[in-house]
Amino acid sequence: MSTAPEYIRTPTGYLMVLRQGADVFARLEQLAVAEAIPSASFTGLGFVHATFGFWDAAKKVFEPQTFRDVELGSLVGSLAWKEGRPSVHAHGVAAGRDFRAYGGHLLGLEVGTGSLELTLLLHDQRLERAIDECLGANVLGL
Amino acid sequence: MSTAPEYIRTPTGYLMVLRQGADVFARLEQLAVAEAIPSASFTGLGFVHATFGFWDAAKKVFEPQTFRDVELGSLVGSLAWKEGRPSVHAHGVAAGRDFRAYGGHLLGLEVGTGSLELTLLLHDQRLERAIDECLGANVLGL
Amino acid sequence: MSTAPEYIRTPTGYLMVLRQGADVFARLEQLAVAEAIPSASFTGLGFVHATFGFWDAAKKVFEPQTFRDVELGSLVGSLAWKEGRPSVHAHGVAAGRDFRAYGGHLLGLEVGTGSLELTLLLHDQRLERAIDECLGANVLGL
Repeated sequence: MSTAPEYIRTPTGYLMVLRQGADVFARLEQLAVAEAIPSASFTGLGFVHATFGFWDAAKKVFEPQTFRDVELGSLVGSLAWKEGRPSVHAHGVAAGRDFRAYGGHLLGLEVGTGSLELTLLLHDQRLERAIDECLGANVLGL
Repeated sequence: MSTAPEYIRTPTGYLMVLRQGADVFARLEQLAVAEAIPSASFTGLGFVHATFGFWDAAKKVFEPQTFRDVELGSLVGSLAWKEGRPSVHAHGVAAGRDFRAYGGHLLGLEVGTGSLELTLLLHDQRLERAIDECLGANVLGL
Repeated sequence: MSTAPEYIRTPTGYLMVLRQGADVFARLEQLAVAEAIPSASFTGLGFVHATFGFWDAAKKVFEPQTFRDVELGSLVGSLAWKEGRPSVHAHGVAAGRDFRAYGGHLLGLEVGTGSLELTLLLHDQRLERAIDECLGANVLGL
């Protein structure tokens, strides 16, 4: 069993490497609590099972679809807080064996047979997400 | 009506949150002028109407196509200057309800029914874009 | 012939602009050696010939496919070391004239008729990649 740390501090934030089976959003939330991160932006890459959800603005729900065993071509997101708990917002692009890419808002992300590298850029203001009543959507407040 | 600021300063640059109807390139250009940004790199995510243009190297023009109401799975770009005015260069990947991803060089980007989060990494050298005569294309000068 | 430098130092790392014909991985490896970069994360955009490889976890090989003359909608990666030499890990998303996106793990990347912009975020710990025996895959060690 590996005894490597799951993340390290960098001059501008954190670098995190997750392995097979890790729930990416849960690990980011644990990091936010453990390190008392006010807010952060992140990018990443890895091999994953990705669940995307398309925002249906009329119904105000996400329509989900899961892609298993895909390379995550891109991951971009932010870490903030909502009602006292960490809140992850992430979008990604994923592709399987035929390289055709699928993308959108991520509802969930699990590391597949490989790893996922995350680079976090740390901000110093505690930011909160809240429902914007005009939009009916969750928005990062500044 | 929201009175939240549209952007904040972070230890490494700026964090910007735009809402429905915002012209993303115009807002980035306004930010560049207001904050006298020498140059910057950025990443982002959000819900948008995206106009991509494929560079036809023979004709030296972009062939445009607009995708409306799409999740922006990824946004990567740079902010510099050209002939005294701010100059945005951005590439992105977008997907709609079926999660099929489309991508490329962005000619324009408007926030849809939701928001767009932008993280800017500030550089300290004023950089200029100019036409590279060998390539016939706009290139960021260092 | 241009006498512009290929990269500059920024407050948080490096900004690199490569032109037609450049082998992106080779240039990143040269940068790592020239600047003695302990490790770094990067993002990028540009016009390229991209070779993706899908990781076949059973066979433990990558199945390659090359896409020529494509806009790189997104590039995310990391720079570390392996057995005394620099080691690049990069994922990307690329699209041609019809904007359909293809993506995944990049085996190779050459700049096409245009340029490629890379933003590197510098870390201060020397990091090494090694085969994780449980996964049978190359993993970034922390």
